[in-house]
Amino acid sequence: MLAVQSILGPKEEPKGAIAGLSALVAADMERVNALIVQWMQSPVALIPELAGHLVRSGGKRLRPMLTLGAAQLCGYHGDAHIKLAAAVEFIHTATLLHDDVVDESALRRGQSTANVIWGNQASVLVGDFLYSRSFQLMVETGNIRVLKTLADASSVIAQGEVMQLAAQQNLETREATYLEIVAAKTAALFAAAAEVSGVVSGRGPAAEAALRAYGHNLGIAFQLVDDALDYSGREALMGKSVGDDFREGKITLPVILAVERASADERAYWSRTMEQRRQTPEDLQTAIRLIEQHKTIAETLSRATGFAKLASDALDVFPESAMREALRELAQFCVTRAH
Amino acid sequence: MLAVQSILGPKEEPKGAIAGLSALVAADMERVNALIVQWMQSPVALIPELAGHLVRSGGKRLRPMLTLGAAQLCGYHGDAHIKLAAAVEFIHTATLLHDDVVDESALRRGQSTANVIWGNQASVLVGDFLYSRSFQLMVETGNIRVLKTLADASSVIAQGEVMQLAAQQNLETREATYLEIVAAKTAALFAAAAEVSGVVSGRGPAAEAALRAYGHNLGIAFQLVDDALDYSGREALMGKSVGDDFREGKITLPVILAVERASADERAYWSRTMEQRRQTPEDLQTAIRLIEQHKTIAETLSRATGFAKLASDALDVFPESAMREALRELAQFCVTRAH
Repeated sequence: MLAVQSILGPKEEPKGAIAGLSALVAADMERVNALIVQWMQSPVALIPELAGHLVRSGGKRLRPMLTLGAAQLCGYHGDAHIKLAAAVEFIHTATLLHDDVVDESALRRGQSTANVIWGNQASVLVGDFLYSRSFQLMVETGNIRVLKTLADASSVIAQGEVMQLAAQQNLETREATYLEIVAAKTAALFAAAAEVSGVVSGRGPAAEAALRAYGHNLGIAFQLVDDALDYSGREALMGKSVGDDFREGKITLPVILAVERASADERAYWSRTMEQRRQTPEDLQTAIRLIEQHKTIAETLSRATGFAKLASDALDVFPESAMREALRELAQFCVTRAH
Repeated sequence: MLAVQSILGPKEEPKGAIAGLSALVAADMERVNALIVQWMQSPVALIPELAGHLVRSGGKRLRPMLTLGAAQLCGYHGDAHIKLAAAVEFIHTATLLHDDVVDESALRRGQSTANVIWGNQASVLVGDFLYSRSFQLMVETGNIRVLKTLADASSVIAQGEVMQLAAQQNLETREATYLEIVAAKTAALFAAAAEVSGVVSGRGPAAEAALRAYGHNLGIAFQLVDDALDYSGREALMGKSVGDDFREGKITLPVILAVERASADERAYWSRTMEQRRQTPEDLQTAIRLIEQHKTIAETLSRATGFAKLASDALDVFPESAMREALRELAQFCVTRAH
């Protein structure tokens, strides 16, 4: 594992309530990391170089952790979950690469994005490569139903990304549309990541549906908190810039709710900065002030708490276990990390 | 079929020797086109709009034609080949969308590219969507071996694209590297498109290998001719701009061979225009003149003829039939279209 660790870089210390789940899946996660390093290789040197940059920068590996946790919860004894967890992380990584090109982001997890270092062209193509790798890994399991689950999720994710692009700079975006976008671009992969372990375990439709519901609601809670942090987080905590969504004209819930409550002057401010994207350096501070004034961060987090509760409750169909408790803590952690 | 036809636009009249194959697979191709129209739909309006632009602009549907032709050659009687042909076209279309972003192309098949009309962001994301659609279609066949073949091909294609990006503006690129890139970025999909029909037909390893060899060599011949046409074709014939490769600093065989035979002055010219990409409007004419002078178009086409012959010969394992003849004519047509 030494070689793998040196490629992956220093381990990120799991924080707060994620530590429980992290410890329970640690042994499996070592195998997932080894598989990720193995499958990101290519004779084309630029590929492992660029992919390694993203893989090394870490992140919480939340999605593969879901796959591993769900497999343990189902008492699964094969090794398909290792491959599936790696496949899920590859889909996620491919999405990140393309997202950063689309959003013209410069910072991700506290580091320069791949598109800044290697250019958009390489980011698009290496994203395609990682995406193809995810399918090769799924194929290795030989299970058509997990392939269907993850292929369907990929399709929903792409549609969510396009939906988000179309909603950009559109102040008419309502909460329902926003939640639809979040369900597609974020929650679909969380849902599939958990569900596939139910599928390979053969625990039946009720367990599969429960895991899917857990992942889905967790994913929505997670994204809501992310969007709240974009106006309130500390950069060190997030590893990305505060105000990214604002600068990109991305309409998220804190803004949607603030626009709903806006005075005529405030409406004009949002229209200039978000719709027309004519922004001065001071505008972000005004946005944060308006969002605080209308208490829309608190409201966004309260919505997130609701979804986290739905995630927790979905696990009721499983008997009590350390893993069930850890997955429930994860749902809680998703929200508490914002406080 | 009326609705499908109105979405797809006027049929392109098959030219020359492709007409034989085209007629033999016409009924199946109607079904493929219907499936393409059906699967490019999405509630997200931008997706069918953008995808339809590319699908409508036609192209020869060469790759799905290969899948359909190979299925007939194998006497296949199911309907997996229809889904696979559509999946292959979706992979190709996704690649085109991402290619045009990477190459900053403005013209494809005589029309403005999607990235010009809808922007790079939409092109990247709709490309991802079509790619996910291709996997959903393959999953529909329920055949793990075809999934493996096409997932592997996708991975090779992405690696080929990155390899090409890395070789760009590098005059040291030799013919062997160029052929490696062509085999990956173009021939891998031709090979898989033909092979999968062998797989679903259950005609055994020899038939599969023959179809793969046919597609592989046909794909290389096809790309060689394409690269020759970029310096010699008429725009009307190609539907893309003459000199695209030159302007992008893409090192293709006509240039590689011309550089090998270059005088010191000519070498300096190639270095300025291709490596440093400092080009004046007259430079393309000079490139064409040098390429004519060193007869490297003729030599590129002669290489293509060799690969077309290998493609033809690979079909020897199949008994004589109208389809075998049509596939051999296609291999010939690939080269003769340049004359």
